[in-house]
Amino acid sequence: MAAHRWVYLFRDGNAQQRDLLGGKGANLAEMTNVGLPVPPGFTVTTEACNAYFTSGRVLPEGLWEQVLAGLADVEQQMGRRFGSAERPLLVSVRSGAKFSMPGMMDTILNLGLNDVTVAGLAAEADARFAYDCYRRLIQMFGKVVLDVDADLFEDVIDEHKRRLGVRHDFELPADDLRRMVEEFKAIVRREAGQPFPEDPHDQLRAAIVAVFESWNNRRAIDYRNANGIPHDLGTAVNVQAMVYGNMGPDCATGVAFTRNPSTGERRLFGEFLTNAQGEDVVAGVRTPQPIEQMADDPHLRSAYAQLQQIAEQLERHYRDMQDLEFTVQNGTLYMLQTRTGKRTGAAAVQIAVDMVNEGLISKAEAIQRVQPSQLDQLLHPTIDPKQSGEVLATGLPASPGAATGQVVFDADEAKALAEAGHDVILVRLETSPEDFHGMLAARAVLTARGGMTSHAAVVARGMGKPAVVGCTALQVDYDRQQISVNGRVIPKGDYITLDGSTGAVMLGRVPTIEPQVHGHLATLLAWADEFRTLGVRANADTPEDAAKARELGAEGIGLCRTEHMFFQGDRISAMREMIIASTPEERRRALAKLEPMQREDFAGIFRAMDGLPVTIRTLDPPLHEFLPHSDEEIVELAKSMGIDPDVVRAKVVALKEANPMLGHRGCRLGITAPEITEMQARAIFGAALQVAAEGVSVHPEIMIPLVGDVEELRLQREVIDRVAREMFAAAGRTIPYLVGTMIELPRAALLADQIAAQAEFFSFGTNDLTQTTLGLSRDDAGRFLPYYVEQGILKHDPFQVLDREGVGELIRIAVERGRRTRPDIKLGICGEHGGDPSSVEFCHQVGMNYVSASPFRVPIARLAAAQAALGQSERDV
Amino acid sequence: MAAHRWVYLFRDGNAQQRDLLGGKGANLAEMTNVGLPVPPGFTVTTEACNAYFTSGRVLPEGLWEQVLAGLADVEQQMGRRFGSAERPLLVSVRSGAKFSMPGMMDTILNLGLNDVTVAGLAAEADARFAYDCYRRLIQMFGKVVLDVDADLFEDVIDEHKRRLGVRHDFELPADDLRRMVEEFKAIVRREAGQPFPEDPHDQLRAAIVAVFESWNNRRAIDYRNANGIPHDLGTAVNVQAMVYGNMGPDCATGVAFTRNPSTGERRLFGEFLTNAQGEDVVAGVRTPQPIEQMADDPHLRSAYAQLQQIAEQLERHYRDMQDLEFTVQNGTLYMLQTRTGKRTGAAAVQIAVDMVNEGLISKAEAIQRVQPSQLDQLLHPTIDPKQSGEVLATGLPASPGAATGQVVFDADEAKALAEAGHDVILVRLETSPEDFHGMLAARAVLTARGGMTSHAAVVARGMGKPAVVGCTALQVDYDRQQISVNGRVIPKGDYITLDGSTGAVMLGRVPTIEPQVHGHLATLLAWADEFRTLGVRANADTPEDAAKARELGAEGIGLCRTEHMFFQGDRISAMREMIIASTPEERRRALAKLEPMQREDFAGIFRAMDGLPVTIRTLDPPLHEFLPHSDEEIVELAKSMGIDPDVVRAKVVALKEANPMLGHRGCRLGITAPEITEMQARAIFGAALQVAAEGVSVHPEIMIPLVGDVEELRLQREVIDRVAREMFAAAGRTIPYLVGTMIELPRAALLADQIAAQAEFFSFGTNDLTQTTLGLSRDDAGRFLPYYVEQGILKHDPFQVLDREGVGELIRIAVERGRRTRPDIKLGICGEHGGDPSSVEFCHQVGMNYVSASPFRVPIARLAAAQAALGQSERDV
Repeated sequence: MAAHRWVYLFRDGNAQQRDLLGGKGANLAEMTNVGLPVPPGFTVTTEACNAYFTSGRVLPEGLWEQVLAGLADVEQQMGRRFGSAERPLLVSVRSGAKFSMPGMMDTILNLGLNDVTVAGLAAEADARFAYDCYRRLIQMFGKVVLDVDADLFEDVIDEHKRRLGVRHDFELPADDLRRMVEEFKAIVRREAGQPFPEDPHDQLRAAIVAVFESWNNRRAIDYRNANGIPHDLGTAVNVQAMVYGNMGPDCATGVAFTRNPSTGERRLFGEFLTNAQGEDVVAGVRTPQPIEQMADDPHLRSAYAQLQQIAEQLERHYRDMQDLEFTVQNGTLYMLQTRTGKRTGAAAVQIAVDMVNEGLISKAEAIQRVQPSQLDQLLHPTIDPKQSGEVLATGLPASPGAATGQVVFDADEAKALAEAGHDVILVRLETSPEDFHGMLAARAVLTARGGMTSHAAVVARGMGKPAVVGCTALQVDYDRQQISVNGRVIPKGDYITLDGSTGAVMLGRVPTIEPQVHGHLATLLAWADEFRTLGVRANADTPEDAAKARELGAEGIGLCRTEHMFFQGDRISAMREMIIASTPEERRRALAKLEPMQREDFAGIFRAMDGLPVTIRTLDPPLHEFLPHSDEEIVELAKSMGIDPDVVRAKVVALKEANPMLGHRGCRLGITAPEITEMQARAIFGAALQVAAEGVSVHPEIMIPLVGDVEELRLQREVIDRVAREMFAAAGRTIPYLVGTMIELPRAALLADQIAAQAEFFSFGTNDLTQTTLGLSRDDAGRFLPYYVEQGILKHDPFQVLDREGVGELIRIAVERGRRTRPDIKLGICGEHGGDPSSVEFCHQVGMNYVSASPFRVPIARLAAAQAALGQSERDV
Repeated sequence: MAAHRWVYLFRDGNAQQRDLLGGKGANLAEMTNVGLPVPPGFTVTTEACNAYFTSGRVLPEGLWEQVLAGLADVEQQMGRRFGSAERPLLVSVRSGAKFSMPGMMDTILNLGLNDVTVAGLAAEADARFAYDCYRRLIQMFGKVVLDVDADLFEDVIDEHKRRLGVRHDFELPADDLRRMVEEFKAIVRREAGQPFPEDPHDQLRAAIVAVFESWNNRRAIDYRNANGIPHDLGTAVNVQAMVYGNMGPDCATGVAFTRNPSTGERRLFGEFLTNAQGEDVVAGVRTPQPIEQMADDPHLRSAYAQLQQIAEQLERHYRDMQDLEFTVQNGTLYMLQTRTGKRTGAAAVQIAVDMVNEGLISKAEAIQRVQPSQLDQLLHPTIDPKQSGEVLATGLPASPGAATGQVVFDADEAKALAEAGHDVILVRLETSPEDFHGMLAARAVLTARGGMTSHAAVVARGMGKPAVVGCTALQVDYDRQQISVNGRVIPKGDYITLDGSTGAVMLGRVPTIEPQVHGHLATLLAWADEFRTLGVRANADTPEDAAKARELGAEGIGLCRTEHMFFQGDRISAMREMIIASTPEERRRALAKLEPMQREDFAGIFRAMDGLPVTIRTLDPPLHEFLPHSDEEIVELAKSMGIDPDVVRAKVVALKEANPMLGHRGCRLGITAPEITEMQARAIFGAALQVAAEGVSVHPEIMIPLVGDVEELRLQREVIDRVAREMFAAAGRTIPYLVGTMIELPRAALLADQIAAQAEFFSFGTNDLTQTTLGLSRDDAGRFLPYYVEQGILKHDPFQVLDREGVGELIRIAVERGRRTRPDIKLGICGEHGGDPSSVEFCHQVGMNYVSASPFRVPIARLAAAQAALGQSERDV
């Protein structure tokens, strides 16, 4: 019986074998077979790595024999021998997993050197070079295989440099390097309790084991957790003949991208160092030169030309931008690695669109090449990467983009200062709906408390405004009107800069750059629109947001929250009067003040969305949120209403709830006080009739929140339909409208068949549905949810990525039951998930008609919807 | 084509036709056919009533002709003529719906009288009698048919009485009555704008219409809403020849029950009035005599003997206790009504058991004859019905039973006073787990806030202690240590009496009577146990409760909450230290103090439940509940821990949650701090090993709360299994135990197939499952839920009666999916619903293994489970 195959020569593999050979190994094999100049070598498979761990850390049967056979092949190709005093073969040993885990695992170079073979190498090149390679081997081997403290070696090097008065390693003469080798060996013997192995085969065997072991080092495990990479893939090990970029002035080493990874520009991009080894580029000891300067160097000119040609060949071959590593040894080019290059969002878009235009890939492929989340970068101002600010503290990156402004602690003050032309940043312990106008006025929002889905985060994202939340290092002192952080005090009025994409809070005014809504982006999104079947709407509460959303491609409003409107200006007083009212008549009087204001809001939104549907949600939040909390405000309100402050106080206390999320809110308000719904219906139809008279095509869709029983919807619908009939009759014209409901309670999902009888559409409110299905308050989950995600108890934060198994199951049930009663029911989603690519994919799969996202996430949703239609499932990794 | 049949003569109907003839009509028909002396008559059907309303309030075609035909039949049987001057026929017109709606609809007597016929009647009897009947007719007709203010007639009567100086109506002479007729007619003419109709046919027609109309009067609609009676049943109308109990001393009228409706004693029970009409008994003008005194009256002796014989005949015929109405006219007995008699819980049990012993009904029927909720009355002390106290205010009847004690506002003080031998009643704005020891010490609990499922209500029911909650009229002033209600002040130390069955709060010490655990009840429950297939366990947290539950028939503990134990004595300090701890080590140190205390608690419960399973839930509530809130307490705690009070203050603030119900609680505590679960497991297994060594048969079932993902359960189970292994190894013996989970989140129900892989049992926590499925906080729902139930938006309070459509659907899903993975998984319910009959029925239908209820509801659950097994579904009405 033939032994299991653990080892593949490069020429026996190909790019499809990433699972078995790892990414690096598969690409080295591919390049070899394409005929590129790759130093010969072989790959020990990921299966071998897994077998090593499952068999209790023993190399699997037959592996070593296959390694020796591979080595013999390399010796033959190179005309060198491993361990030979003459023309010794040296090899590198590198890890290479299926998914790139940069810097996480270990590499050892120059294996094969010992006191005998070093002489052979010295004879071929020179003594300085040979001993430099030797000391590097001992250093790397000592650190990686024998776990010797790396600083001990560095101390020796520093000592030599100090003694000689030189600054750089490469200035050390051969003699010092020779002595250093002995000193390094002594360190190894002392620290590891065993001598550095002189036998090259022992070196190789130990190096392979060390790479296997590095798969399970702490760093690698953490990286896999953070990136959702399974732990059972294992790493391959690549053993490859060494080539040298440091054998003289006709040698060089470098890295290159076939296109610019920051901008996407189609031009070889990269850098190189002459007379250097690969690590030197990374280590940053010498400053590398831009790659195009290779053409100016007569020793390297021809290699450069070849590199350019190979770059183009590889790009055509892989049909994507490549990230290359190369070495030039004595004028000869060697390719050491190719892989798909990482790129910024801007580059991803540009490259994808260019490649379609070049005929390299199809439009569908272009769409699949850009991660929807990458678009985020393109749609917000960012910190100028050429500048840097002093980072005071870091919070959660709640809403992307960067902004600079003066610190202010109060919403009213924020508004006043903004109106006076200042840029302000609203800083709060946490925000509530009362802060809405202040958030609207501020350039950005910073809170000390709250998570990624706290009020501040959700509202800021909705506004497309940068926000950093849960920045626990900040002590926000409203009394003294200052922030302190680590003993440092920032008083009101001082400038800070927030980076909502990283969570950084910086001192002073750090320059930002404005987003480029690139022509290529428009092209890509237009292609996406050709493929997607899912509609994309926006969550927008103001005419400005609505207009912006439309500009970004929204095909309607999926969620217009009416409550934010009540916080503006003097509306809050009327709203409070409405809440304090003790009879329906008093309540109607207060509502009558609000009605014309709401009507104007709606008219503005209808105009902005001329021809498109606008989904308006009736009043949703618990009334307590609208009431004043400070005693001053209470007294003022009582005065303006001409009543006893104690009445107001009592109402504030009476409306306080133990669990407001599950309290008297949503349609429960409209059921117990139908005059509220009536007023809102009057405002909606009044606005619709008004703009229709102006020639605007208006399509209101009225949405009832927090329905748990069809009877609730029937009662609210009755009010709305009655108001419509009355107003249409009075106006002598009709406006087409729909009435539907949010599905945001498990009971509503389960009883969707009954509810559909009264609903022309369902909009899944996945924020609340997630809260109720998982029994998780998004305001409180910060104490354990991050731990849950870290520990893998939950794969994702369910407020960010829709929980398909739980919440998704309820959605599936609701879709199925809803359609059973009303086959043509319109189905959408208006939770925060509407802007999350994985959730958009789910919505597509489950057969919804549309998703609704924050305006600035509309492009993301468009792209994600197209990818979903193309059946992409890379996010399932 | 024959006209639709709208009218049935009594002799043409039978008792099965309740839908068509109403309860009264069907029973009059049945009695007629059995040969009992029923005055002849006929019934206008419920269909006629419905047809009247659906056709726009017009009598349906053919109805009047059939009424006239029925009238002709009655005339013939009576040898009298309707409207005749000689031997005039008079009739009564009475409503009669399918379900009894006592006093809700209208009745008119003596129809057929006018200025002509009254003379005929006078000739037969005497003028006083005839004019008395006539004035009664005008009075009733005026009020019921013509909507004349009844007080106007009463004023006239009072005037006559004043003038004559007499006290009672029956003292008015014929002349006055004759004049009164004229005066009444004048009132009718003036008030109704039309004369009293002299034509008897007009009277009859108008009376039938008036009874139809009374189906939809406000009172009747409210009654139907309150009692869950559909609005589309309609009422029948019974037209019957009048007989008179007021024609002389050989006349009488009365009501009787075939057995005592309070005690169940087998003996004719009732009362009568000589020379009176039926209304006189009800009106209470004269005091009726006990029924057995009829035997002492020579005029009535024979009628009484006949009545006794008829009572027995009807009981045998209907096989149930009957509620009878009769009239004796000139020595002749007439039966006017029979129906199944309402009875107290005690009577229901006694009658059911007696009837089995008498061979009248089967055991299965006996079980079905007692409403489980009626047992409640038998299991708690009650206010002595012979006494009455001054009712200060009325709250929600949260936990049945009555108790008297001194008002106290603080849990510690309650405990101290109780230990000093005082009876105290703990009065709080609302209670929290910190008040547990005070509730335990008090005789009863009174709160100003909270609903039927508030903390106070739930805990009091669990303890079997009377409670009145949500008594909003009370102002509880902790500072002044007093209650005030409507200006009246009750200081600390004053006595009050609570009736937890009615919600009454009474001043002073109102005598109560102790519950009789009747021999008949034991018999009935033993029969119930023969029929039921559903197990019944109890929710009990102390050895005392466990013992009581066992005495009441519990077959195990379905829910032992461990958190209450932490509030007793000095445990709370150790608990607080555990919470304040900043490292796992500190936390372990504090937990080590709690462990021996918990072990002792568990040992006591295990001993009490020797041989039966005990389900112990690991720590569940948010930690905030355990922390001190007053600054004094905070300082004290800090001092005892030797730390800065600010550290404690910060922790108290940090643990505050926006929605604690959805916060860091349940297994989330054990996941983030596994040392808590470990300590609890050590206490459980330590106690189990200890009592097992004493020879106790111990069966712990460890239950993990608030699981939303199988991974949570797996991690907690890992801790428990490890502790078990270690402790069993150390002790050298093994205890059989199960690990399971609560299903109280929608996600857990949906993912039950995955969770079952790690769970040996599921216990449905329907309190929390109701909160999450409906998005309803039981602490806050008081503001709208009562309105929802009143308006019929929800049929029942879902915290009292399990919501079958929503919560029930999730349970069905979980049962099906859980069993798919683990066919022998044990399934139970431990929410408050475990003691609700309708919910028990659901649990039976869905195939659970057991329900778990508060100790005092165990008998109710046993009976309900037997009824469910017998397929009873009367509660579906």
